[in-house]
Amino acid sequence: MDKHQLIECHERIKPYIHNTPVLTSHLIDQMVGASVFFKCENFQKMGAFKMRGAANAIMQLPKALQQKGVVTHSSGNFAQALSLAAQGLGVKAFIVMPKNAPQVKKNAVKGYGGIVIECDPTLEARERQARMIEEEHGATFIHPSNDDNVILGQGTACKELLEVYPNLDYVVAPVGGGGLIAGTALAAHYFGNPCQVIGGEPLEVDDAYRSLQSGTIETNSTTNTIADGLKTHLGDRNFPIIQNYVSQIIRVTEDEIIEAMRMIWERLKIVCEPSSAVALAAIFSKKLQFKGKKIGVIVSGGNVDVNNLPF
Amino acid sequence: MDKHQLIECHERIKPYIHNTPVLTSHLIDQMVGASVFFKCENFQKMGAFKMRGAANAIMQLPKALQQKGVVTHSSGNFAQALSLAAQGLGVKAFIVMPKNAPQVKKNAVKGYGGIVIECDPTLEARERQARMIEEEHGATFIHPSNDDNVILGQGTACKELLEVYPNLDYVVAPVGGGGLIAGTALAAHYFGNPCQVIGGEPLEVDDAYRSLQSGTIETNSTTNTIADGLKTHLGDRNFPIIQNYVSQIIRVTEDEIIEAMRMIWERLKIVCEPSSAVALAAIFSKKLQFKGKKIGVIVSGGNVDVNNLPF
Repeated sequence: MDKHQLIECHERIKPYIHNTPVLTSHLIDQMVGASVFFKCENFQKMGAFKMRGAANAIMQLPKALQQKGVVTHSSGNFAQALSLAAQGLGVKAFIVMPKNAPQVKKNAVKGYGGIVIECDPTLEARERQARMIEEEHGATFIHPSNDDNVILGQGTACKELLEVYPNLDYVVAPVGGGGLIAGTALAAHYFGNPCQVIGGEPLEVDDAYRSLQSGTIETNSTTNTIADGLKTHLGDRNFPIIQNYVSQIIRVTEDEIIEAMRMIWERLKIVCEPSSAVALAAIFSKKLQFKGKKIGVIVSGGNVDVNNLPF
Repeated sequence: MDKHQLIECHERIKPYIHNTPVLTSHLIDQMVGASVFFKCENFQKMGAFKMRGAANAIMQLPKALQQKGVVTHSSGNFAQALSLAAQGLGVKAFIVMPKNAPQVKKNAVKGYGGIVIECDPTLEARERQARMIEEEHGATFIHPSNDDNVILGQGTACKELLEVYPNLDYVVAPVGGGGLIAGTALAAHYFGNPCQVIGGEPLEVDDAYRSLQSGTIETNSTTNTIADGLKTHLGDRNFPIIQNYVSQIIRVTEDEIIEAMRMIWERLKIVCEPSSAVALAAIFSKKLQFKGKKIGVIVSGGNVDVNNLPF
């Protein structure tokens, strides 16, 4: 994917996304000993960066396919993103969700016009269900992270950040399925001056860290992390980009994630997901490396249930 | 206080304050049946609108008095505001706080360069202590809300809001000591087109509501509200302004405050104080009145302890 494609993608999705604000905190800067610029995708439409990739993926389908709808399986932010992006484009979105997903998540998808299709809570069941919808409706399957158009879309957050702060030394983003970090790495590669991209990953689900070491896509045998958006593993589309353009993955503990989340809530006065806090936690854990630098942080999303907080 | 004074005040304090952003939410608009514009003073320096009035009050002192310092008694946001404003202006700030105030609040004041003077936790003790500092140092006492220069400063938040959205039908702000609502009322009177100002007040500390009914300043015999910034009563400087320019005070229950706070956190993705949520709670409680209108809301502050949340 070249620079031109990223520029075109950004122009394409602009009517459907917010150019989100960038916030700073004197106190956090003092604590890190650096200048940190928070790109607030928690203020993005539907509350997360996923809106970018979802919009781009649908818009890149030929009209004839758009008319048949799109399908994905997700119980997280991509379900809401695909629903809302599809709604804005007049496209049907079928969202396969496990029966036991929280009702509030099903309602959120329905609220954005998505059609919720329930399945048994197994990987096999949800893939079978998605295939059935592809066959029955001719709907196009869109993967939440392992899709070139999704990756390009997610990269536009970093592109916007570099438009305002072109001289960032680093951009740090959380690593889950790999769509955000791959897109961010492409954007920093094409628009940085130069700018290194670093991933933050929970120690409890450090599949990306291990994948970079082994050179093959690793998975997690357990997923005991509060960062519920980061439990998935990389795919064959984003892994090569991460191998080429991500300079480092920093792993953080659950306590470090919660402490960074508290810092963002109390100091920046914004609501972010635990997954988002992983990036700041990574910076705190390697302060020496970041001393005196200009650092961008992608605050990936803000969809939390305030009745269920870690503090 | 005339229009010219409000304009001059705003110009004076601009270097020391943020012109805070205004946020909106489609979902909240749908729920209210109106357009609501949230002026986010939780993003103000030190996390609350109080920075505005504190800066103005200090700057209006003659240089000779500035050199002797300022003093106030507060364990809340005004303590931090006066400390930070004084620090920026090279002025000493003595902050009288009850011995039993939370250590985190004392530390916040010290962090902003304030000099904490502890006293017994009674009204009499803190007033005596403040007077001693006035006499000993020649420091000028600055009241958190019952002071013309403080009132003018607080009004600049509404002035900024009307600069961006000149056609608001209403601005709603919480009522505590009366500085914010009085300043807001002045700003709406001079810069509205026209624009009515409405106060939101907890039913549990409805002194301002009762004061407007009786025509004299009433107090609260109990203060059982989560909106800890709103427990104080009006003063002789702000009460006449409120009588003249505030069109209505809407009282809300504790449950309504918590529900509005949850709405702001989950939908706007920002951290606000319970006191701030009182304004949105007031709008929800009188939806019929606000239907189809353009409404500004002053989100007064965001200094909360995330370990001690109502949800």
